[in-house]
Amino acid sequence: MAQYTVTFFPHKKSVVVEEGTTLLDAVSKAHITINNLCGGDGICGRCKMVVVEGSVKGDVSAKLTREEITKGYVLACMAKIMSDLIVDIPEETLAKEKIKSDKDAERFRSFEETVSRDDYTPSPLTQKIYIELDEPTLANNTADHERLCETICRNNRFCSIQMGLKIMKILPEILRKNNYQATVTIGMRRDIAELMNVEGGDSSDRNYIIIVDMGTTTVVAHLVNANTRKTMGAKACFNSQGIYGREVTRRMITAEKRNSSDMQQLIVGDINRLIEALADENSINLKNITAVVCAGNPAMGHFLLGLPTYNMRRYPFVATSVEPPPLRAAEVGIEINPRGLLYSLPGISAWVGSDITAGILATELYKKEGVTLLVDIGTNGEIVVGNKEWLVAASASAGPALEGASVSCGMRAEPGAIERVYSNENVIGFDTIDGLPPKGICGSGIIDLISVLLEEKYINRSGAFIRNTDNIREINGVKSLVLSENGKDGGSGPVFINESDIENVITAKAAIFSAMKILLKRLDLNFSDLDRIYLAGAFGYYLNCDNAISIGLIPSIPRNRIEFVGNTSIRGAKIAAFYQEAYSDIMAIRKMTTYYDLMGADDYVEEFQKALFLPHTDIELFTSNAGSGK
Amino acid sequence: MAQYTVTFFPHKKSVVVEEGTTLLDAVSKAHITINNLCGGDGICGRCKMVVVEGSVKGDVSAKLTREEITKGYVLACMAKIMSDLIVDIPEETLAKEKIKSDKDAERFRSFEETVSRDDYTPSPLTQKIYIELDEPTLANNTADHERLCETICRNNRFCSIQMGLKIMKILPEILRKNNYQATVTIGMRRDIAELMNVEGGDSSDRNYIIIVDMGTTTVVAHLVNANTRKTMGAKACFNSQGIYGREVTRRMITAEKRNSSDMQQLIVGDINRLIEALADENSINLKNITAVVCAGNPAMGHFLLGLPTYNMRRYPFVATSVEPPPLRAAEVGIEINPRGLLYSLPGISAWVGSDITAGILATELYKKEGVTLLVDIGTNGEIVVGNKEWLVAASASAGPALEGASVSCGMRAEPGAIERVYSNENVIGFDTIDGLPPKGICGSGIIDLISVLLEEKYINRSGAFIRNTDNIREINGVKSLVLSENGKDGGSGPVFINESDIENVITAKAAIFSAMKILLKRLDLNFSDLDRIYLAGAFGYYLNCDNAISIGLIPSIPRNRIEFVGNTSIRGAKIAAFYQEAYSDIMAIRKMTTYYDLMGADDYVEEFQKALFLPHTDIELFTSNAGSGK
Repeated sequence: MAQYTVTFFPHKKSVVVEEGTTLLDAVSKAHITINNLCGGDGICGRCKMVVVEGSVKGDVSAKLTREEITKGYVLACMAKIMSDLIVDIPEETLAKEKIKSDKDAERFRSFEETVSRDDYTPSPLTQKIYIELDEPTLANNTADHERLCETICRNNRFCSIQMGLKIMKILPEILRKNNYQATVTIGMRRDIAELMNVEGGDSSDRNYIIIVDMGTTTVVAHLVNANTRKTMGAKACFNSQGIYGREVTRRMITAEKRNSSDMQQLIVGDINRLIEALADENSINLKNITAVVCAGNPAMGHFLLGLPTYNMRRYPFVATSVEPPPLRAAEVGIEINPRGLLYSLPGISAWVGSDITAGILATELYKKEGVTLLVDIGTNGEIVVGNKEWLVAASASAGPALEGASVSCGMRAEPGAIERVYSNENVIGFDTIDGLPPKGICGSGIIDLISVLLEEKYINRSGAFIRNTDNIREINGVKSLVLSENGKDGGSGPVFINESDIENVITAKAAIFSAMKILLKRLDLNFSDLDRIYLAGAFGYYLNCDNAISIGLIPSIPRNRIEFVGNTSIRGAKIAAFYQEAYSDIMAIRKMTTYYDLMGADDYVEEFQKALFLPHTDIELFTSNAGSGK
Repeated sequence: MAQYTVTFFPHKKSVVVEEGTTLLDAVSKAHITINNLCGGDGICGRCKMVVVEGSVKGDVSAKLTREEITKGYVLACMAKIMSDLIVDIPEETLAKEKIKSDKDAERFRSFEETVSRDDYTPSPLTQKIYIELDEPTLANNTADHERLCETICRNNRFCSIQMGLKIMKILPEILRKNNYQATVTIGMRRDIAELMNVEGGDSSDRNYIIIVDMGTTTVVAHLVNANTRKTMGAKACFNSQGIYGREVTRRMITAEKRNSSDMQQLIVGDINRLIEALADENSINLKNITAVVCAGNPAMGHFLLGLPTYNMRRYPFVATSVEPPPLRAAEVGIEINPRGLLYSLPGISAWVGSDITAGILATELYKKEGVTLLVDIGTNGEIVVGNKEWLVAASASAGPALEGASVSCGMRAEPGAIERVYSNENVIGFDTIDGLPPKGICGSGIIDLISVLLEEKYINRSGAFIRNTDNIREINGVKSLVLSENGKDGGSGPVFINESDIENVITAKAAIFSAMKILLKRLDLNFSDLDRIYLAGAFGYYLNCDNAISIGLIPSIPRNRIEFVGNTSIRGAKIAAFYQEAYSDIMAIRKMTTYYDLMGADDYVEEFQKALFLPHTDIELFTSNAGSGK
């Protein structure tokens, strides 16, 4: 088959591809990250590019205007390469700010100074220990390997130490050249202590662990000093897999069609870039990073390890592994100390991952007397209810609307996003992130906006516009409310919300609310029986709780029982990383948690449909301060 | 530096080497195995070659006759290559019969039908288990990895199972393609059960383990069916390291001077050739060989793993590891199942290896009430004394005379070797292995011969000839007794023993006897206090016990207390391979055994000198049936 060269501007990067390859695949091959929400189905219209020279074929998309088509615009996912090409990628198509500091961590203090839990004894999963061995004599000429292990075990709490051949080979020289003084790195592989590394002299003060939250949308990494447990830095980037779909299911399909290692390379690449940025910023040598501890949903966990996801999305929804063992990080391509370990924390099922077990750990649900509900709002809404005796988890597919996607002017929580909306003397006002001109609306802004529109009677309880004001008009044939006449994606279009967007948001909040309701019903509980609701997710921090109640996303229970707990995934992963007992407890949490499959519930559809109103069909659920979920 | 091509005949193999390389190194590089006893010091004269074309430089050796020198004979270890060469390797120089069946095993029934120990429960270190998993349902959709591990643990005695990424990746497909029926290979890494392999369907009947005795001179491998514990074949070959010295110390020196991985490659090459021959003969696929269990002296153990030996032969004699962990066999280059395990059994010290711990296991010394002495006669003589309460081990450097080396016409126990010598009506008679014309004398023949010479008063108690008969004359200026006028090494020279040879044998037996004596003295014991003496070594089988007593190699205690136990190294390794409790007991044996360093004994030299007579200075030790060693 013919091979063509495609050159992308402004990057001036060229790749050679086969005839018929899509521009989306070509841009991925060129390692250029672009916006794409639908995973290449020609639906989202975010992957616009301009073909400057050469020819492509493919259907014309309704997402392109006549003017754009005349100018040579194509959707990268629809355009098949038929010759050598020169392609311009417009700024709006390029994913912004590859590596940024973790705003969440910075703004909302989840960037805690020190990981701390009084109920556990500090003991990092990988630790460096300085030891001084007795010099061998004729009366005490125990072999080097056994001398080292015996000394470590005697001075510490290990019963035995595993050691590989590579270490044994270098051991005699290191010990003798350093006067029998050495620093050993011990990594826990479940109950087994492995001597991962040995260095001459005392370097025990240089040991760092990376904590990663592998979000479907955003990957966050924190750098923590293993001795002080202080977080030294926090960085985030978009999950590069986004090019193959905003939702994990689409990525699974892509992984099955293509080589499944593609998804692995993308997430590992993101993690490596974050680690590099953190190490650079803190002048840390990568060899002193001895472990990476990751939490994420089951799909991300599988992608990270390159495990097949095929059966996860097919009846009866079976994961390949929910409790993978610690591995050498290098085995998946993560660049830290060559013998450093990768801990992918255990999840619960094919649909409830280690982000949730970490969340349970962080919020101490598994130690509480009263019944607590934890809801982690993301593309999937995960819900856990329970106490120290029992835990039940469920997962609801909410879609990406509450993250600002599948909404015309939705965007990630980046500078320029409308993050807060309010009504001021009947005028709709808003704040943007960093006070920049508005480019779009992020999740918290969308909830605020719908709540305001409902309160100010712009829309009815079904989400349809019922007022006629200057700022309401048809855009692309759909009734829309315009917030700003221009600035969309940094360009000239208006920033607006339309009835279809509102419908997507209602669907999302209905999915989450009905999931909570069904789960409590099965447990013979009301919302009022809950001691506490923990609202988690990066999202949670921006959320106006009253507005979330008023659109029916969360139930109306006394406000002092609702707590925003932030990114519990990364917080739980940190605790697991620095307290071996907590790491073991995650295994116990997995075993004490029952997964409840909502899809199998007869009344789920009914409950879901009842929730497809603002705030709900049963409006009385949201009028008292103690709604009944029964 | 100039590079030259050296071509060896009859092999027609060429290698390119740098100017000044010895012919010995070149022949090694060409992977041709030749006889060499001294390790390249120009002493043994076994590495004769004929330079047909080209020039070499180097000292002329006294080991070559004038006639040989005229014909172009050189010693390969002394000849430095100065041009392209064509070299003939005479038949006598070539090591014979690269792979042969283990004669020991065949002739003396150490080739036992079934490995069997009533005191342990059979449980091979690597086992194949056939399992049928419950097919996943919505109500039971445990992940594949956990489903598999839980099923194995439930049906077997494992608490937990370790599994690597490679297996997890292929697991979903294997399970589904085979109707959830699979065969897992579980390997023990100390207390940890590792799932090494998974295959679809039931292949649990095809599991084989290789047992290796890494002798300094001979490497023996047995192929055992892991289910029936039946030995299916036994092969032996010369240790290819012999080219770098008959004694391990010489090989250590060579390993330090050259690349230490050379020695590893040689022993691994030997093991691979033995495995291949065994697998071919029994039509077994290498992938069904799941483990190799090795015993040997500490140097061989270090060479096998490529561990540094530098400190073992230097004060205070520290090994790198005496208890190395189980490893992936592929990590050292052993070719069995790519995920198969290598168990290098634990030894005791830098001088007492796993051949001895295996010997203790095989002879059950560590379970006996009465005090037993085990002596394993080889190039090193290892001695263990003890009972179920305590064990003390010592090692005496005997030299290779008792194995037929460092003796003018000494040879390995191959066809044509004189293995038995007797006096028949005042005429010295002998038997050769396989009844062939005599080529030389092997160890058992040498002991018989010296005993006969002493009894018939050919020699005095110092080993000097005191008779004048036709068969005694000077050869190369040394008084010699000729057994056959021609046939040496298959050539035309006489087969004889001279006074210098006899002195070497006396030195060897004196080293072993005085070691036993000193060790017992330290323990406040007499030889008569011993319940039993076990005489081990391939050597032991050929030994005429009365002759061994009469030359003073072993003490004169009642014959019914002396037992030949054969190759206890391979027998013990088999027991460790098929009984996990026995494998654990080897660790316990290591810990309950004290190493006694003879070199540190003040009276060793005195005892040694007293033993430099036939049978001993204190002749009364050998005149009664119950000698006193005190």
